[in-house]
Amino acid sequence: MQRYFIDQPADQKEIELPKNVAHHLVTVMRAQAGSQIEVVLADHRVYLATVTTTSPAQIQIVKDLDRDSELPLRVTLLCGLPKTKEKPEMIVQKATELGADKIVFFESARSISHWAKQKQAKKLARLQKIADGAAEQSHRNRQPQVAYAPDLATALAENPADHRVVAWEESAKQGETRALHQVLTGMTPGQSLVAIFGPEGGLTSQEVEQMQAVGVVPVGLGPRILRTETAPLYFLAAVSYASELAVNHR
Amino acid sequence: MQRYFIDQPADQKEIELPKNVAHHLVTVMRAQAGSQIEVVLADHRVYLATVTTTSPAQIQIVKDLDRDSELPLRVTLLCGLPKTKEKPEMIVQKATELGADKIVFFESARSISHWAKQKQAKKLARLQKIADGAAEQSHRNRQPQVAYAPDLATALAENPADHRVVAWEESAKQGETRALHQVLTGMTPGQSLVAIFGPEGGLTSQEVEQMQAVGVVPVGLGPRILRTETAPLYFLAAVSYASELAVNHR
Repeated sequence: MQRYFIDQPADQKEIELPKNVAHHLVTVMRAQAGSQIEVVLADHRVYLATVTTTSPAQIQIVKDLDRDSELPLRVTLLCGLPKTKEKPEMIVQKATELGADKIVFFESARSISHWAKQKQAKKLARLQKIADGAAEQSHRNRQPQVAYAPDLATALAENPADHRVVAWEESAKQGETRALHQVLTGMTPGQSLVAIFGPEGGLTSQEVEQMQAVGVVPVGLGPRILRTETAPLYFLAAVSYASELAVNHR
Repeated sequence: MQRYFIDQPADQKEIELPKNVAHHLVTVMRAQAGSQIEVVLADHRVYLATVTTTSPAQIQIVKDLDRDSELPLRVTLLCGLPKTKEKPEMIVQKATELGADKIVFFESARSISHWAKQKQAKKLARLQKIADGAAEQSHRNRQPQVAYAPDLATALAENPADHRVVAWEESAKQGETRALHQVLTGMTPGQSLVAIFGPEGGLTSQEVEQMQAVGVVPVGLGPRILRTETAPLYFLAAVSYASELAVNHR
């Protein structure tokens, strides 16, 4: 069933749809009075709703579906800005599907791209739109936030968390295989996790030392070399597997 | 270090490089006599080698580096043929990075694309080239094989395995969360695993029944809806996490 995010309080039973949602529902999906949809309201809960009129587009809330597809851990990705325009788009789309709570691009020492100040808002708006669409498609309860930081120090300072890890190639090369598993099995539902990824060419050892100095744990993601856009996806799938599938308490 | 696959027996110490490898090494990478590279020979082992001459391009094997980056389980993906040309390319590239042993595209009931017989060889050759390149980049010991099957029954018949699972959305919707973990923790290194994925729109319930009848186990990949190109990547990351990181014996 089609799902839409509507930033409205959940105490209203009749809701007039915002323009962009109304356009998609009525013009693209050709919904009619009586059609049913799922809406996520400002409380991040999923409701079944019935279209009452199409012009203006209004819905009536039928019931709370009590569905939660969010990861048990709140994961923020800090990604070294990749070279091409396509890679941030792919990371945002796939990381949203895989459950990320926030995706931050930062200028890493080896980042070749640079987001000029006057272009940042436009670039973020474009990526946020991709995240919002992917959140509807993948039936999330939350739309992840996309953000930008001019450097690693700012990215770290602006994103505190219960646990922080950095995906480090050298860690994998040195045969380290247990750190990620140890972090994930040591976490409890509701805790926050920040994970840092390098751009093409990887993080510099200075950047990794800078992070280790403030308690960020280097983790390997297996023995193969993953591209800058693949590592965050591996990471989120591992978090999902460890916290949603390889557990006894569900 | 640059890695190349060279289909030569490992008992030779001096090797003349095939044309495509010679071109990349000498013309693109500007290697000179004395440059060092890694080569994977026909025995799937990684050797350190020194360039002795560039015209003709010849190398001398220095030593066996004793590196193995292959997944402990041999994973074959059977993917319902997606709609666009880009998606199979992305699946092949990323699945190679993530350790797949073989990637088969088959025409599923809801596949909109169709590979005409006279175009199959050309399409496969293109995808195989992507797999070969990704295997070098990700430092694999093996280049995965890319194949095509006209339908699900053929894909299943041509790819027997110790264990077989199908990623099924309905399985996840019904709250099933343990099946994948049970299969993965029940496997031992060296065993083979076939995983089946639907195209856009998913598998039909007839297809799932057809598979269950021959013992394929439906597994959920978490509560979010994954796109056809994302599900195989989640799956491979989960296999890696379960068999390479969340284990005690390494």
